This record gives sequence, structure tokens and C-alpha cells, in this order.
Amino acid sequence: MDSGVLKRKGSMAVNGDKVRPRVLILGAGFGGLSAAKALRNAPCDVVVIDRRNYHLFQPLLYQVATAALSPAEIASPIRSILSRQKNARVLMARVTGIDAAAKRVLLQDGRTEAFDYLIVATGARHAYFGHDDWEGCAPGLKKIEDATDIRRRILLAFERAEAIDDPEARKALLTFVVIGGGATGVEMAGAIGEVAHWALADEFRVIDPTQARIVLIEAGPRLLPAFPEDLAEHARKALVKLGVEVQLGRAVEQCDEGGIVYGGERLPARTIVWAAGVQASPAAKWLGAEKDRAGRVIVAKDLTVPGHPDIFVVGDTALVLDPKGQPVPGIAPAAKQMGAHAGRVIAARLAGRTEERPFRYRHAGSLATIGRSAAIADFGWLKVKGWLAWWLWGIAHIYFLIDFRSRFIVALQWLWSYFTFRRGARLITGGEGEM
Amino acid sequence: MDSGVLKRKGSMAVNGDKVRPRVLILGAGFGGLSAAKALRNAPCDVVVIDRRNYHLFQPLLYQVATAALSPAEIASPIRSILSRQKNARVLMARVTGIDAAAKRVLLQDGRTEAFDYLIVATGARHAYFGHDDWEGCAPGLKKIEDATDIRRRILLAFERAEAIDDPEARKALLTFVVIGGGATGVEMAGAIGEVAHWALADEFRVIDPTQARIVLIEAGPRLLPAFPEDLAEHARKALVKLGVEVQLGRAVEQCDEGGIVYGGERLPARTIVWAAGVQASPAAKWLGAEKDRAGRVIVAKDLTVPGHPDIFVVGDTALVLDPKGQPVPGIAPAAKQMGAHAGRVIAARLAGRTEERPFRYRHAGSLATIGRSAAIADFGWLKVKGWLAWWLWGIAHIYFLIDFRSRFIVALQWLWSYFTFRRGARLITGGEGEM
Repeated sequence: MDSGVLKRKGSMAVNGDKVRPRVLILGAGFGGLSAAKALRNAPCDVVVIDRRNYHLFQPLLYQVATAALSPAEIASPIRSILSRQKNARVLMARVTGIDAAAKRVLLQDGRTEAFDYLIVATGARHAYFGHDDWEGCAPGLKKIEDATDIRRRILLAFERAEAIDDPEARKALLTFVVIGGGATGVEMAGAIGEVAHWALADEFRVIDPTQARIVLIEAGPRLLPAFPEDLAEHARKALVKLGVEVQLGRAVEQCDEGGIVYGGERLPARTIVWAAGVQASPAAKWLGAEKDRAGRVIVAKDLTVPGHPDIFVVGDTALVLDPKGQPVPGIAPAAKQMGAHAGRVIAARLAGRTEERPFRYRHAGSLATIGRSAAIADFGWLKVKGWLAWWLWGIAHIYFLIDFRSRFIVALQWLWSYFTFRRGARLITGGEGEM
Repeated sequence: MDSGVLKRKGSMAVNGDKVRPRVLILGAGFGGLSAAKALRNAPCDVVVIDRRNYHLFQPLLYQVATAALSPAEIASPIRSILSRQKNARVLMARVTGIDAAAKRVLLQDGRTEAFDYLIVATGARHAYFGHDDWEGCAPGLKKIEDATDIRRRILLAFERAEAIDDPEARKALLTFVVIGGGATGVEMAGAIGEVAHWALADEFRVIDPTQARIVLIEAGPRLLPAFPEDLAEHARKALVKLGVEVQLGRAVEQCDEGGIVYGGERLPARTIVWAAGVQASPAAKWLGAEKDRAGRVIVAKDLTVPGHPDIFVVGDTALVLDPKGQPVPGIAPAAKQMGAHAGRVIAARLAGRTEERPFRYRHAGSLATIGRSAAIADFGWLKVKGWLAWWLWGIAHIYFLIDFRSRFIVALQWLWSYFTFRRGARLITGGEGEM
């Protein structure tokens, strides 16, 4: 049977008698997948390594955390995405290090994978700025498991509030704190507001979910620093209209299972979500490369690591400056552009064209949504807010979802939610999923 | 704020000055929900207690385990289902016992809930017939978490087989064993066959998933004892056509992480699914009632517990005989009929009609699916097999799904799978969800 089970053993590196160059891509996020696709027609073997079996559409992860979408609707198997790219192979494995001198990547199971070219696209995780102990009480939102964990906490808080008699404990259960006023924090706070005020409104008999307190805390002077001030102010007003309390200019000083302290004041709250910052993956450490405060590798103009012309770093793990001298933002379109650039540079080199090709970031626009019919969009030449921006946001996100099935099903879920005010994935699963 | 958060405190038992009878329903499966609905217009307060926040459409759970559907597509929040039934309240809590004399249900958090009438609809779990240590290596399929666990094991087995070099280990990874030849076992084996032979066929570069070995083991002499012999034989042939090895008349003697021993023979296999039997919930113990071998409470003709005229047991937890003297099967339609019956008896008593009303089971038919275009249906007066039975099966299951959104989305997922041969929820999450 073995000969049957084995399709072709070790045939990847051999094509006839000629050994083809081997391009390793670490991470199958937006950057890694774009790099793989850019190498589609290049005469090389591409190996994509990810510790997950799926590509995750992170911009909609907060919708899983707030029970609007199911995990599978924003995640697609990496193998399916690359199944038709015959020069690509997918390996599910955890990377533990890079031996740049020997041109090898180290895997957790002790094995190594050799490369001729390497593209590091391992993304970022949320960071607690020296307060790592806060992670237990204030989970961040980067993985599917984070999202279902936060969903469980939010839904369980309402269930527990319905079941207990102590008014103080009930008050803490019905207080939801989101820390961080960037796009993720704004989207989370708005979505929790929608859950409390619409989705659950008529379903409890003892508590009144519409009276839940949702507090968005931002240490800086304003929300959404990536947006123009008038759009950010529009977002703030839309949040207030949704019943969210926006607290600016007050940092969180303390965080535990019972609540937070911010601006010297204690706020009892049983559900806290962290959206205040990210830290790049440990690629800089693996490579011994120079990094910025957020852990991002400071790359050369062509996205290679200085001193390692065959190693590229892209996406949230790389620090690159845009034409105006600003760091390229950690968003999906930027990661895609960087991944595609690295792939094209390698393809050109394989074709014998070795001239330097600097990466140029093109900012297509910024979008953020607050809730039903409320969003902001900034295209530089055009600013949009309100329902039009919301439709733009929805259409753009459905368009960029990676597979046809997801597009169709997400569109349907949203239309259903829009007309019924309900949410389709209100499941308390995992952990304390049962009482 | 407290007065705002509190909608109406303790108002459930009081209606004006008159205290209304209190009906407790334990479990929001098919039996419990039908009972609640039958009491919709009765002058009583209904409290539905479940340790989960959702009703689960168990007949499609195997489709979650085999990556065809997402959990939220077969689960609906109990609160949503009952939100318009004004005399019903939902409480998420775990029941630990029943004090029948004092007419109280004991909850895990130490609180109690009083009742005038009680309907126990707590279902069944899979059972290992004295081999409880097999649960770790051969998980059964009753909860959402069971399904995502089995999905993870199946998908991870292919990923690991692709990554390793040892041919013996690879062979064990690509061997899938399903123990038990009832409807769940047949459906699981068929669905794993479809995953291996179609969904994953083109996506691996080292292994060939179509060469995976799927073995269905049944200790009895034939599959599907609930069906006529010719339909069961059709199902066996359809499984063989799907590449499933069907082993009849050989019991599993040993089961561990490395494989099984059956009929004296060792079969190395890394993925084993248990579908060989169920055990009723501990309701008989709670009630001190007489039970059968499967732990089911032996109830009176009106579904009450002998000696406790105000306590009913319905669904998989009850042993009831049909008009032919056979035990009513543990399937959804039977649980629904029993729940509705118990609700109607209570409603009649509340209206002052106390004559005995024996429960009569009406068997509408049996359906089982093996895979694409292959199913069997037995309506007594009509037997159907093949593609027609498959369409009947699909339409019936979509019709019985509890909410409109699920019906629409499940229909779409199935149509998409039907035309593309793919599966929409191929996520490895939880546990060892990342490598």
C-alpha cells in the first residue's frame, strides 16, 4: 500500500535531472499567499509553511468575536487556495528558528527545511507593553481561538447576569471594556453595542441587555489616529449613538479578572478586550536582524534583510517606509503588496534580471466600520462617512474574501443580520462552554 | 443603573396576585423544546434549563465532524427560539440532581429551582460499555466540541502524513477506523470517505489522500439494524463503492492511541471514532427511578415517572414501548413527540382535565445517508434507496432545521459541496490546532 499512498517522494526538488531553486515562505497570511502567487510561473519549488491549515481573513475576525460570522466563513484551507499552483507545496509546521548562514529553517519537530530564497511573512501578535500578565483577563484578537474565546466571554456574561441575584456582580457582568481606540477597538466596541442593544434585546426575562455598559478606552487624545480628525470624530459620535462610552486620554493602569483601573478610577467589569497594540513575530530574533520598538525587521528598499540578499521580510513583520517617509501600515493591502513584490523580485532574479527593485507602497484607502450603516472611508482624494461608507466597507470586504463560497455566505449572513437585527453564530463553545 | 438593568425581578411566579404553576424543563434538545412549545398558551411559567446556550441539531453533527458544516449552522440560541414565547424563561445552568419530594432541581452553583411540574429531557451520551478508558483514543460524537475535536483529528492526520517520512507511521495516520455500524457510524464512515477521495484529492504533494484506508467495524452481523435488510445491504455496497472497508461480526477488543485490536487482529490507526452506543443521562439516578440497561428511565404510559405524577421523562432518557411493544427509538422525531405529549398533558391538567392520556409513538420513517447521491429511506409502506433517498434525506433535514437562516445557509453549503466536491469548514482549531 505504501507505494500507493506515496504520490511522489522527494520529487519536489528534482525536475528531470535539474534541481530547481527552492523558495520557502513562512506564513500563509496576506503577505505569504501573495508571494506564493507571484511565483506561480517561476521556475522554482515553492514551499509554504504555516502552523495553521488555513488562511485567515483577519479584518473580519472581530465579527467572529461578536457572533456575527462563523470561523469557517473567514478562513480557507491553504491547500485549497494553492491546490492548482503545481509548483507550490504546503507544510503545516511550527517554525522555531532560521539558520541564515546554512540557509535552513528549523521546525519544532526537529526537522529542517532548506531554502535558496526565504520570504518571512509571520505577522504580528497583540502586545501588552510589559504587562503580559494582563493577557489572561484582557484577551486580544489575532487568532480564531481568540475570537471564539472573546465570543464565549461576551455571551456568557449576559447568561450569568441573568442567573444571579447580586446587583453589584450583575453590574460588573454587564460592563464591557474595550482597550484601544484603533480600528479593531472601534469595531469591537461598536459590535458589542449592537449585540447588547439589538441582537439580545428581547431575549432575557430578568436583565435588560440594552442597559449594558460598553466602555471604549484610548490613552491617546483621539480615536483612529490613521484617519483624518473629522472622520475620527464622526466615528466617535456614531459609537456614542450606539450607546458606547468613549473615554479618551486616560490610560489603563491596572487590569484583573474583576475589572480595570484607568485614570485613577476603578471600573468593575468582567469582560475586557485588548485592542491596544501589536508586536511583530520573533523573525528579527531568528534572523539576528535590526528591529524597531514593535519588533519589526528593518528591511532594505527591496524588502530583503540587510546582509542577506536572499531573505525577504514582508507584512506586519517588516518595517518599511512609504514614499512620504511614514512606516507602511500593518494592514492587509500593504502585506499583499509586499508579498507580491518579494515574489516578483525572486522571479526576476530566477530569470536572470538582478537589478534592484525598490518596494513602493500604494495606499488605496482606509476603511473602518462602527456598526449598522455607520462607517468611515478615507481615500485621500475623497472622504466618505455614514451609510455610503458602510456599504463601501461591506462590498470591499466581501470582494477581498478569498473564496467564492465565503463571499456568498458572508454576504447572506450580513443581509440576514441587517434585516433581522440578529446574529448568526451565538454559540458559547470551548472552555467553560457549558455550565 | 441597577433598576435599569433589572427588567422585572422575581416577576415570573407572580401574575397580579395569583401565583402561576411553574413548569421546569431540563434540556433544550428536541424533547425539551417541543415540551416548551406545547405549553405556549398554558397558564404557567415555563423555565428551560440547559447547560448550553444553544439547541443542537444533532442529526447533522457528523457533518461538522467531517468539515462540511460549521457549528453555528446546526445550533441556534435557545433564547432566540423561545424569545416570543412570553411565558418561557431560559436559564443556562448545570443540573446536578433532583429532589423529587421537595419538588426542587439542584444546580451546580448550589442554587435550587422549585417546580410544580418537571419535564426531564436531558438526552444521552455515547457509552463505552465498561471501557471508559477508550474515550481518549476513540472520541464519540454528541457535542459540538466532540465534532470539532474529531474534525481536528481527521484533518491533522492528513497534514502529519504529508510531513513525515516513516512509511509505517504514515500508514497508521492514513487509516481511519469508525466503530459501530448504526446510522452515525455509517454516516461518519461515508463522510470520511468523501473527504479523502474528493475534498482532499488534489491538495497534497507527497501523500495521495485517495489511498487512505477507512474501516467501519460492527460487532453484529449487519449494518443499520433499524432498517430492513435489503436497504442495509444497499448501504453496505454504497460504502464499499466509496472505498470504505466494512467489517461485520468482529468486535473491537482493544483500543489505544496507536490503533485497535478486533477479531484478534491488530490494526494500526491514528484516528478512531466511536459510534457504537449511547447511555442515557443520569436522570434515573437523580430520580431514584427504575431504569433499563442503557440507563433509560422506565416511564408510565403517560411518560410520568411511577410514583411521581408531576415528573415526566422524555426523549433519549426515557424507555417507552411503541404500539408493537418495541422500545421507541432514540431519534429526533420520537423525542419531539414525547416532549409535545408531556407538554400537552400538563396543559390539560392545568385546564382541569385530569384523565390519563397514554403516549402513542407514530413512526414517520427512517432515513440514513452514506454519501453523495447515496442514501436509504424506509417509510414502512415505501422503501427508497439511491439518489432519490439522498434528495429526500437532504430536503427533510433542511426542513427540520430550526431556523430560517440555518436552512438557507445549510442548503447553500450543500449545493456548493455538491458541485465543487469541496467541504466548507476545513479548519483545524482548538487543542493542537496549531503546530
